[in-house]
Amino acid sequence: MKVNKVAGAALLLACAAHGPLVGQESAARRAPKVVLIIGDGMDQNQITIARNYLVGLNGRLTLDTLPIRSASQVQTVTEDDPSVPEYVADSANTATSMATGIVTSAGRIGTTAGTDRDAPTIMELAAAAGFGTAIVTTASVTDATPASFVAHVSFRLCESPRAMVRDPNARFAGDCPADLKANGGKGSIAEQIAASRVDIVLGGGERNFAQPAEGERRKTVLDLADDNGFRVIRTAAELASLPETGKVLGLFAPGTLPVMWRGAAGAEAELVARDAAGAVVWPEPFACEPAPNFGATPTLQAMAAAALQRLDDERSFVLMIESASIDKQSHVRRPCGSIGELKQLDETLAFVLEYARSHPETLVLVTADHAQAALLVPETSVLAALNAASPGHFARVRTPEGALMGVSYATNDSDVQEDHTGADVPLYAFGAGADRVPAWVRQAEIFEIMARHLGLDASSAR
Amino acid sequence: MKVNKVAGAALLLACAAHGPLVGQESAARRAPKVVLIIGDGMDQNQITIARNYLVGLNGRLTLDTLPIRSASQVQTVTEDDPSVPEYVADSANTATSMATGIVTSAGRIGTTAGTDRDAPTIMELAAAAGFGTAIVTTASVTDATPASFVAHVSFRLCESPRAMVRDPNARFAGDCPADLKANGGKGSIAEQIAASRVDIVLGGGERNFAQPAEGERRKTVLDLADDNGFRVIRTAAELASLPETGKVLGLFAPGTLPVMWRGAAGAEAELVARDAAGAVVWPEPFACEPAPNFGATPTLQAMAAAALQRLDDERSFVLMIESASIDKQSHVRRPCGSIGELKQLDETLAFVLEYARSHPETLVLVTADHAQAALLVPETSVLAALNAASPGHFARVRTPEGALMGVSYATNDSDVQEDHTGADVPLYAFGAGADRVPAWVRQAEIFEIMARHLGLDASSAR
Repeated sequence: MKVNKVAGAALLLACAAHGPLVGQESAARRAPKVVLIIGDGMDQNQITIARNYLVGLNGRLTLDTLPIRSASQVQTVTEDDPSVPEYVADSANTATSMATGIVTSAGRIGTTAGTDRDAPTIMELAAAAGFGTAIVTTASVTDATPASFVAHVSFRLCESPRAMVRDPNARFAGDCPADLKANGGKGSIAEQIAASRVDIVLGGGERNFAQPAEGERRKTVLDLADDNGFRVIRTAAELASLPETGKVLGLFAPGTLPVMWRGAAGAEAELVARDAAGAVVWPEPFACEPAPNFGATPTLQAMAAAALQRLDDERSFVLMIESASIDKQSHVRRPCGSIGELKQLDETLAFVLEYARSHPETLVLVTADHAQAALLVPETSVLAALNAASPGHFARVRTPEGALMGVSYATNDSDVQEDHTGADVPLYAFGAGADRVPAWVRQAEIFEIMARHLGLDASSAR
Repeated sequence: MKVNKVAGAALLLACAAHGPLVGQESAARRAPKVVLIIGDGMDQNQITIARNYLVGLNGRLTLDTLPIRSASQVQTVTEDDPSVPEYVADSANTATSMATGIVTSAGRIGTTAGTDRDAPTIMELAAAAGFGTAIVTTASVTDATPASFVAHVSFRLCESPRAMVRDPNARFAGDCPADLKANGGKGSIAEQIAASRVDIVLGGGERNFAQPAEGERRKTVLDLADDNGFRVIRTAAELASLPETGKVLGLFAPGTLPVMWRGAAGAEAELVARDAAGAVVWPEPFACEPAPNFGATPTLQAMAAAALQRLDDERSFVLMIESASIDKQSHVRRPCGSIGELKQLDETLAFVLEYARSHPETLVLVTADHAQAALLVPETSVLAALNAASPGHFARVRTPEGALMGVSYATNDSDVQEDHTGADVPLYAFGAGADRVPAWVRQAEIFEIMARHLGLDASSAR
């Protein structure tokens, strides 16, 4: 909520650091660009599971063709004593690390652990430098990952004006009231997006904007966005017929966008049953099928394409693209949902790589924010003869190449959702500056890699 | 059991492929070397868990300093129809992929799925080319990983002459009798090691050699090794006082070498208990402590150092070093056992890197054979307020930096052991040729990377 005093002013365009400029180079070539693609929860299990289904054991995802691979250590500290680490993160603190270069506590959006100071984001630094900025996600645009690139609140669930007022029935108690404008804060995430300098924001979450804004009698957050120059759109048709310039806020669903795939007839992982004698009754195998609700909203690739088309080639820009439902579908134990979402990410990546090949000043980074629960396991336990089976939720997915793939979700025994896991996550790089990405990074270094490529001197921003 | 006809003869020293030789270069510099370090089961969870404990969230393992990172896709096919994949591997088929460049079925050692043909190993090709060869492991030297570099049998448990005779009580039925010498095979793994051209073999498994050899009246497999020129040693003192030349077979324990660490007072992951009201009773946190049985046998680093000291610098060589108990301790749900074993690997790696820095013709590869069960999870579930807990075995490890780390083992509900998992595994590279390692490989390509660096034309070997 408090503004970091050294931020904002401490910008320095340092394109010269990117090598001598050749006279014939176009302005575009001199304007370094960054596309950061975040697969939420896209750890190595998710990638291998998706590859096996989408292209088979002998196939190759677009991800697999990327020339540089690194790993990113996920970093989290405890709120009460930030000198003590936590070993498993959430999407808020991890996206904050990538967006701002700080390490913070779980649940925080663009703010420091314990001291609650605002940390300037790569999008804010880029906008202040006159660069283009865009956020694309299959989640609500107010969800933790996109929010961390544009907002500063103490808790990720402070998404809308209504959410700012403490709900006594809420399961997770955040500290939203402290971030109310009336209390000297910046208001909800939706209000901060509406007031932001980001050029293009595309995703879901319309319900968080169609609410009266704090302190306004007649205006909703949508009205505030309109006042701030955003053209607000809600349909794929509107996305396809956008004018070429101007700010855009696209809100294509009330919350998360519908996912592309589901298990046949809605099948998902389930608890392994046992018969009266205690023998395992293995779950019926299932394949994936198109989800009935998908199609009316834009694909991730369509949103990314619209953003790239509208971002000015002549200027530097930073574009963050999140494939959110790898994580969300893993939480609720739906392997086909995660696989279909990773397919969306991979197709979007292919499109982005085409752009980057024709705009070689572009650095493309692909990574995950944290690891997730899904484990690729044998389709029946190696100890099946001893009647052993998964103690958690279990799916047997029938792949197009005619084999069965076991996917286990067993981080907890609730019927609500799985926990995140804590392993380092993959980081891939392509294009300009990719070869300067170290083979192992701490997650906050991703901010520095982007800032350096864009020529933003962000060293004094924290 | 049948010998691949095109093997053996198809060797070609092609050092010229490594660039023009400079006159001043020493013979050593002209002799490319490979050190392959395999952390059995060392997936990204194991590495992150070990880092958190060994050096803390802000620390850095030697592994983390390696300049090149790739990932390796684990490949397995079904025995009955090798055109159909399996998505989770075992250490036999994965080590066979790395050792020979083929993809085979689970349990096979150096032989093809379905057709049971022998595939020549990198060690055999290297020995035939006059290169040095060495195998170092903390497992029995007859265990799946080391065996795959030197032996050819249809099933990994065919380790000793006694094991070749089918045991009607055995849980896993292999096809050992077909590999008996009397049936035209090469005999047990121990007998194949004793008869091999490998220069140095160091590890455990003495009990598999101290048995009457097949068809011998008075000779044990140890005697056969002695006949083949091996100096057989059994103690760390003997290892420290080896003569400088000659073949060595070091067998320092009856089976697997004792591990370095255990949980305090023997603590390991356990099923989460619930009180009469159904509330979770969280397991007591524990730290790691030295295991009482460790110390009498050589460390992995001491064995690796002995091998490097005895391998001739003037000649090319291939050295395989396996850290076996990351996997074995994860199977039995002992996080401290895996952490201590990964510490051994990391210290051995530091030693090997010193060698490689002073012998820059050395390519160092570090990888895992397959992923394992251990998951880094929150120390209490995010849904602990809803009374959710791990449905499997669970440990809360107290790290030296004063935090708690949750480690879950929940691939099956047996009281015997966990299953492997199927994610791509890390692959790191250092030294000569490291920059030619692609960012993503199929596991069998690791054979080709090694063969290419050594100048062995292995393309016709399969």
